[in-house]
Amino acid sequence: MSFQFTIHEQDIKSSARTGTLELLHGKIETPVFMPVGTLGSVKATSPKELKDIGFDIILGNTYHLYLRPGDKLIRDAGDLHGFMNWDKNILTDSGGFQVMSLQQFRKISEEGIRFQSHIDGSYHLLSPERVMEIEQNLGADIIMVLDECVPHPCTQEYAKESADMSLRWAERCLIKHEQLGGEQTLFGIVQGSVYDDLRQENAQELIKLDFPGYAIGGLAVGETKEDMLRIVKLMDSVLPKNKPRYLMGVGTPIDILENVERGVDMFDCVMPTRHARNGQVFTRKGRLTVRNGEFKNDMRPLQDDCNCYACRNFSRAYIRHLINVNEILGVRLTTLHNLTFYHTLMAEIRDAINNGTFMEYKSKFLELYTCSKKNYENL
Amino acid sequence: MSFQFTIHEQDIKSSARTGTLELLHGKIETPVFMPVGTLGSVKATSPKELKDIGFDIILGNTYHLYLRPGDKLIRDAGDLHGFMNWDKNILTDSGGFQVMSLQQFRKISEEGIRFQSHIDGSYHLLSPERVMEIEQNLGADIIMVLDECVPHPCTQEYAKESADMSLRWAERCLIKHEQLGGEQTLFGIVQGSVYDDLRQENAQELIKLDFPGYAIGGLAVGETKEDMLRIVKLMDSVLPKNKPRYLMGVGTPIDILENVERGVDMFDCVMPTRHARNGQVFTRKGRLTVRNGEFKNDMRPLQDDCNCYACRNFSRAYIRHLINVNEILGVRLTTLHNLTFYHTLMAEIRDAINNGTFMEYKSKFLELYTCSKKNYENL
Repeated sequence: MSFQFTIHEQDIKSSARTGTLELLHGKIETPVFMPVGTLGSVKATSPKELKDIGFDIILGNTYHLYLRPGDKLIRDAGDLHGFMNWDKNILTDSGGFQVMSLQQFRKISEEGIRFQSHIDGSYHLLSPERVMEIEQNLGADIIMVLDECVPHPCTQEYAKESADMSLRWAERCLIKHEQLGGEQTLFGIVQGSVYDDLRQENAQELIKLDFPGYAIGGLAVGETKEDMLRIVKLMDSVLPKNKPRYLMGVGTPIDILENVERGVDMFDCVMPTRHARNGQVFTRKGRLTVRNGEFKNDMRPLQDDCNCYACRNFSRAYIRHLINVNEILGVRLTTLHNLTFYHTLMAEIRDAINNGTFMEYKSKFLELYTCSKKNYENL
Repeated sequence: MSFQFTIHEQDIKSSARTGTLELLHGKIETPVFMPVGTLGSVKATSPKELKDIGFDIILGNTYHLYLRPGDKLIRDAGDLHGFMNWDKNILTDSGGFQVMSLQQFRKISEEGIRFQSHIDGSYHLLSPERVMEIEQNLGADIIMVLDECVPHPCTQEYAKESADMSLRWAERCLIKHEQLGGEQTLFGIVQGSVYDDLRQENAQELIKLDFPGYAIGGLAVGETKEDMLRIVKLMDSVLPKNKPRYLMGVGTPIDILENVERGVDMFDCVMPTRHARNGQVFTRKGRLTVRNGEFKNDMRPLQDDCNCYACRNFSRAYIRHLINVNEILGVRLTTLHNLTFYHTLMAEIRDAINNGTFMEYKSKFLELYTCSKKNYENL
């Protein structure tokens, strides 16, 4: 296993901390945001553009890549790094979440998840052992155990049964992973829905398996913000301080700030890329829908102080036009901007933690970000 | 008018020649291919990428830009150069061709072309005078007169009436253009369908108006290749040698070679960008459909000796995957490759003419390009 996690600064007023993850494909400064490259491409961007922004790690989705183009084809192309020509780090999820959210025909049992492909109707089994093989073929630097991500709401009874099974799957993943060998780093995933006792128990059992890092799964699936933040705070008190914590599928800039405060080191979310495709961009003053008529003649950049390719070269009026007539360049520009926004946010968060001013930074950011609800919609 | 055309080399065995067009936004080496940026963006590319390939001039479509976002908005944004952040040359057509090909509701009369917008049902008149105003607002370096591009087939009677009217429109454009003043260069357009005598007469009358350059319009609309090449050859003998000739909407690599041989200096066509979006790429051995199953495991670049970003970094297998799962990066890569292919073709053509080896270059290119019809479809 090629993995090291070093903590640099621990904030005094909160659980926020900075650190460095050292993996086979280079160093990653934490807290970090990881763009999602579901099908071997962070939508609308090139690897060069991602590097130019400064990303050191991206995600790939095991479920999608397993179905198309197939994990063996990717292995033969020099794993996902070679296939998509990305020589920095990659994290792959286990496919469990996607099977749950995308498949109508699936059956979960102790052996794993059986499902029917939406592409050609073929039948597949994602067992813990099979997932380890697939993730090894994909060749990401960090790989995730198979888990069941239960929907919200979920009864405590079902949540307990499921979390217990996910725990047994985690152990099977660990065994298979050790058999397979290799340099990949396997993270465990805490489940237990919104039930504190289940979460605590599940985390404690996972810790016994001594994973090098822990993800908090099963959040950002429809629960309240209060539930999410309470569970993350609880995890902060249970999970070992010296290992990285990854909050899966989160989130908005506000979510990120709140959860960095609660000790999270790693985030991923489709939000910056997905919103970009809908013509929504993040700015320091909140989110704006650039396709709206109010920007028809607006010759300012998307965000005044942004240094991305879109903001250095093009006006809101031009980008609005491109989005409204379905020109690909429009989506390219909003995507570059949104990813730059997230990357800049993380860099500023790290600086603030290192300077001992994280809570002040967070307050100032939120004050400006929520200042003008008139023009800007959801945050 | 900021315009100068200098001929460098005249091929001995054909009418091919090299030259330099000097316009307000820089020099252009001819023969030149101009990518089409219909709505203020060459589809799927950024201005930086176009510059990196080496393009010095692109097209904009007056009809589309007039309707969305509107010529006045573009004027206020620093004309089309400022709006799309392209500081090299631009050519705009007159909108006549698009109204004819896209609009169901249109009425052509001496005053101009009346049509109903497909976007909001509003009524519009493109008169010669109005088109000159719109093109001045768009601010391209080369602008085109309003003409009627008659469909194929077309009776000689209709073709004559239409060509005569287009000639009167050209004169009205010239008068209005002189009234408006400014630095833009106005080209005339020869019409007359596939009828030699009409073409000859129309060209001779246009020449009397002393335009700085002449386009050959009304071709590549469904006539045979023989008709196209015969008309262009005729034009070569009629149009003044010291002025640039622009063959509108042409064409395939073979079309370009055949028409350079017949004295054409400028070309534009949506083919490289449109085919790219359909997953079809140009190679020295013909066109290939990269989405086909035969490329599933093909780890070679699209074209061995190509230096474009796609060929330097990605395999056919990866690009095929991206295209098949509708990832924007796939279309970006095929577009960059196809535009690089066209740009390289023109550079090689110019070198060959300058070296006195154009006809040999043409033969060799065509031999290889048509060699393997087994794998590759249309040329």
